[in-house]
Amino acid sequence: MVFCSSYSFGSVYSHLEKTTMIVLLSGGIDSSTLLYRTAKEGIEDIVALSFNYGQKHERKELTAAKLIARAIEVEHIEVNISAIKPLLSSALTDFDKLVPDGIYDIDNMADTVVPNRNMIMLSIAVATAISRGDNTVAYAAHAGDHTVYSDCRPAFVSAMQRAIDFASDHKVILDTPYITYLKSAIVAEAHTLGVPLGLTYSCYKGGEKHCGVCSTCRERKKAFIDAHVHDPTEYEK
Amino acid sequence: MVFCSSYSFGSVYSHLEKTTMIVLLSGGIDSSTLLYRTAKEGIEDIVALSFNYGQKHERKELTAAKLIARAIEVEHIEVNISAIKPLLSSALTDFDKLVPDGIYDIDNMADTVVPNRNMIMLSIAVATAISRGDNTVAYAAHAGDHTVYSDCRPAFVSAMQRAIDFASDHKVILDTPYITYLKSAIVAEAHTLGVPLGLTYSCYKGGEKHCGVCSTCRERKKAFIDAHVHDPTEYEK
Repeated sequence: MVFCSSYSFGSVYSHLEKTTMIVLLSGGIDSSTLLYRTAKEGIEDIVALSFNYGQKHERKELTAAKLIARAIEVEHIEVNISAIKPLLSSALTDFDKLVPDGIYDIDNMADTVVPNRNMIMLSIAVATAISRGDNTVAYAAHAGDHTVYSDCRPAFVSAMQRAIDFASDHKVILDTPYITYLKSAIVAEAHTLGVPLGLTYSCYKGGEKHCGVCSTCRERKKAFIDAHVHDPTEYEK
Repeated sequence: MVFCSSYSFGSVYSHLEKTTMIVLLSGGIDSSTLLYRTAKEGIEDIVALSFNYGQKHERKELTAAKLIARAIEVEHIEVNISAIKPLLSSALTDFDKLVPDGIYDIDNMADTVVPNRNMIMLSIAVATAISRGDNTVAYAAHAGDHTVYSDCRPAFVSAMQRAIDFASDHKVILDTPYITYLKSAIVAEAHTLGVPLGLTYSCYKGGEKHCGVCSTCRERKKAFIDAHVHDPTEYEK
């Protein structure tokens, strides 16, 4: 594993004899940066977990996740729970609903909420952590998502931590280091960490290239501009 | 739907205009009785949700669930998330581990814990409830399981309710009416409600008949004896 010599985080895990971690990895900028941050903190026993829950952009997203995990040499497990797709109502899973264009705000993005998605993925990640004896599960909830996605807010994270605490006798820490970050701050950190951002994928439409006009693509573009980081993404528009 | 005319519960849902409910149904005594109780309370819009998570006794359990749902004329959905099986360490999913015989206590049953199972199933049930606009998710956690299974305890239920509250803007009540019941009290209620207990299945070994000697079979036998209810189960031993 190549470490960036000029780069160092103060570890929040110093009270643990050995940190072993499950990282939720979608293959987007946020979770990819989280995986790099984790690996570069020197945590060696990491598993990146990605989910096929029937999202339309499943193949592009999961390929991006695989490439990112390979780039940082972390074990990657893809979990196919696409059988839950018919149970979910969301523009991300339902072909009768359009992925919204326009700016990334609550009006535009409400349809992209996948009900309870983070609790589902975290619950399986926690089960994996308990089974493996890992002590930490991390996911890349960030401040830019708080308005649209309830399950990225600090109140949800705190409540989930408590539910996890009571779910088993094995202690699992739910780690969300980006909970106060805007996406542009994550892009800036990705740049510092050397994340191959060109491999990441954000577009909810799942095309070969990022569409460039859906709300998520617009949010991606804006984050690069705000962070003053070169955007390597090829957009259709 | 046939109602048992001599039977009536005071409804806890009277503050809701219309109660619509997801019930977790394993096909065992507890969840089958819960489904009957729910249906006989007059709640008409019910979906019973059963999970294939790679349990060894999957076929027997899910067949029992299907028969029970059919008997009370409730919609039944089987969700296959068996892709999570390789992630789990448990005697219920791992063919290298034996299902324990002997009495139903913490020493014997620890290996049968499926890590975080209830959070996984509840999180998908809540996603379904949000998608359908249902207001309640019910599961049959009971007092007899508190010692062995953390995720059947009142503290877990309270913490999960809070996590569910923060996971979305749609209110979902987590209902556990048997949380203070011993299994024998559930068997007594099942008898009153007319649950076809001979259709239910408990044995973790998954054989054609209940083995009669594993901890779960012993717990089942004892519950009938304690409730003074005829046990229609055919046991191998």
